[in-house]
Amino acid sequence: MNTKPTDFDPRQRASYRAFSHIPIRYGDQDPLGHVNNAAIAAYFEHARCEQLLPRIASSDAPNLNIVLARIVIDYVREIRYPGTVDIGVRVTHIGSKSLVISGAAFVGNTCAAIADATIVFFDTEHRRATLPPEAVRARMAELR
Amino acid sequence: MNTKPTDFDPRQRASYRAFSHIPIRYGDQDPLGHVNNAAIAAYFEHARCEQLLPRIASSDAPNLNIVLARIVIDYVREIRYPGTVDIGVRVTHIGSKSLVISGAAFVGNTCAAIADATIVFFDTEHRRATLPPEAVRARMAELR
Amino acid sequence: MNTKPTDFDPRQRASYRAFSHIPIRYGDQDPLGHVNNAAIAAYFEHARCEQLLPRIASSDAPNLNIVLARIVIDYVREIRYPGTVDIGVRVTHIGSKSLVISGAAFVGNTCAAIADATIVFFDTEHRRATLPPEAVRARMAELR
Amino acid sequence: MNTKPTDFDPRQRASYRAFSHIPIRYGDQDPLGHVNNAAIAAYFEHARCEQLLPRIASSDAPNLNIVLARIVIDYVREIRYPGTVDIGVRVTHIGSKSLVISGAAFVGNTCAAIADATIVFFDTEHRRATLPPEAVRARMAELR
Repeated sequence: MNTKPTDFDPRQRASYRAFSHIPIRYGDQDPLGHVNNAAIAAYFEHARCEQLLPRIASSDAPNLNIVLARIVIDYVREIRYPGTVDIGVRVTHIGSKSLVISGAAFVGNTCAAIADATIVFFDTEHRRATLPPEAVRARMAELR
Repeated sequence: MNTKPTDFDPRQRASYRAFSHIPIRYGDQDPLGHVNNAAIAAYFEHARCEQLLPRIASSDAPNLNIVLARIVIDYVREIRYPGTVDIGVRVTHIGSKSLVISGAAFVGNTCAAIADATIVFFDTEHRRATLPPEAVRARMAELR
Repeated sequence: MNTKPTDFDPRQRASYRAFSHIPIRYGDQDPLGHVNNAAIAAYFEHARCEQLLPRIASSDAPNLNIVLARIVIDYVREIRYPGTVDIGVRVTHIGSKSLVISGAAFVGNTCAAIADATIVFFDTEHRRATLPPEAVRARMAELR
Repeated sequence: MNTKPTDFDPRQRASYRAFSHIPIRYGDQDPLGHVNNAAIAAYFEHARCEQLLPRIASSDAPNLNIVLARIVIDYVREIRYPGTVDIGVRVTHIGSKSLVISGAAFVGNTCAAIADATIVFFDTEHRRATLPPEAVRARMAELR
């Protein structure tokens, strides 16, 4: 199913179409003195929402939203407080009711984590997967 | 690398060796009115720590800890507040410096999410992967 | 405004009307190796919701909810992972559109934190403070 | 004990000595569709740490840290996702082993919450309150 571009290197900043910039919060740390893995999962979520939700909101589909169906995160290096994490995102697959958005967490040019998130278009009224309008798919494809 | 038991069905309670019981907190919810995916990731983390940390603490290795190297979570169904989530865990692979701990989130007998976490034994003084004592590996194997 | 019962000793378990039992999650800790203050704030929120929301849901007011207007927390002792925190709650003041719910966090019989939360009845449609039905006030008064 | 400057208006940006800028994360929201109160508590914590920890780290006291002894937060208005919250901070009282740092959360020029945090200087080795070096007190007084 995964049809990533053949030249896609997930650990390079140049591979991504958009970036979200996230200041590390003190409370993101855990007792090991580094950023907790669940905080890094929240960074990826924040970046997905920042990049994708405005592309949905621009449509005429009031009950359309997105939910996470699958997440894969590889933690490559520790992230230490304080600082800012840049999350790069790129849509690497578009299906009929779902898409894959790949991401990476950078501290400067160092890649600290990479992720693939499978997102499902979701009807908030009937609470089930749904086909999005073509205009929404086109907006998502801008991040391909 | 993954060498799960051939009869391992991740969506069945009977597949797991130990369970952690986690009350859903109000703040685990997100604006979609269900438990947020990052909260579910934290449930799996809590269960891993509850089951694995005491098996490390019983050893003579004061600087030994575990860190998460890779997480895969499949979100199968929504989880709704209020209630309790039971997280089943089972060690499904043991390598030299790492292991895979599989888990599932149950609400009653309904499986809402499954996860595979790759854990690395970590030397907190030198901050790098390390070989654990044989006694620790044996304690981990009790969850196999 | 605050009209607490004169015999109310906030650091005694016997002062409280109901208890919520909250397992400490690994991720509740911070780099100082104890439970983070924001996690303790979330424990108090969880207890308030567990005790108060069912008393609202039983009414005929579909748009009625509660929001937090003011919180005061005194952190008395460190809380350490692992373990369970018992949050005692008691309604110590009832106004027309608001109430004060007092709480304390216990580890065994040791009081680790006390809190006073001012809660406002909230109309989720008009997004403003509102007068609750008398039946809701009566249900709240059961925790007095 | 509280000896705030007589001209201190906590809801005005001009009252504060330093600001931390915090992007609202998607996961900071709760089911009411606004930023959760515990997330706002974490914003204040982040601002305190960002402003105070570097002033401690510059000293020769390796085991010196700060812990929160008391927090008072007044939630004045809802905060809605997306956006950035500016947290203003000002030291409004300095005692021998503690200080009060006041703060406010602004969305643009609108004050959404105000807080008073009582911070205690903490010896991480002996895990108790301690007198800080005079140099640290002087650095803190720069935020007065």
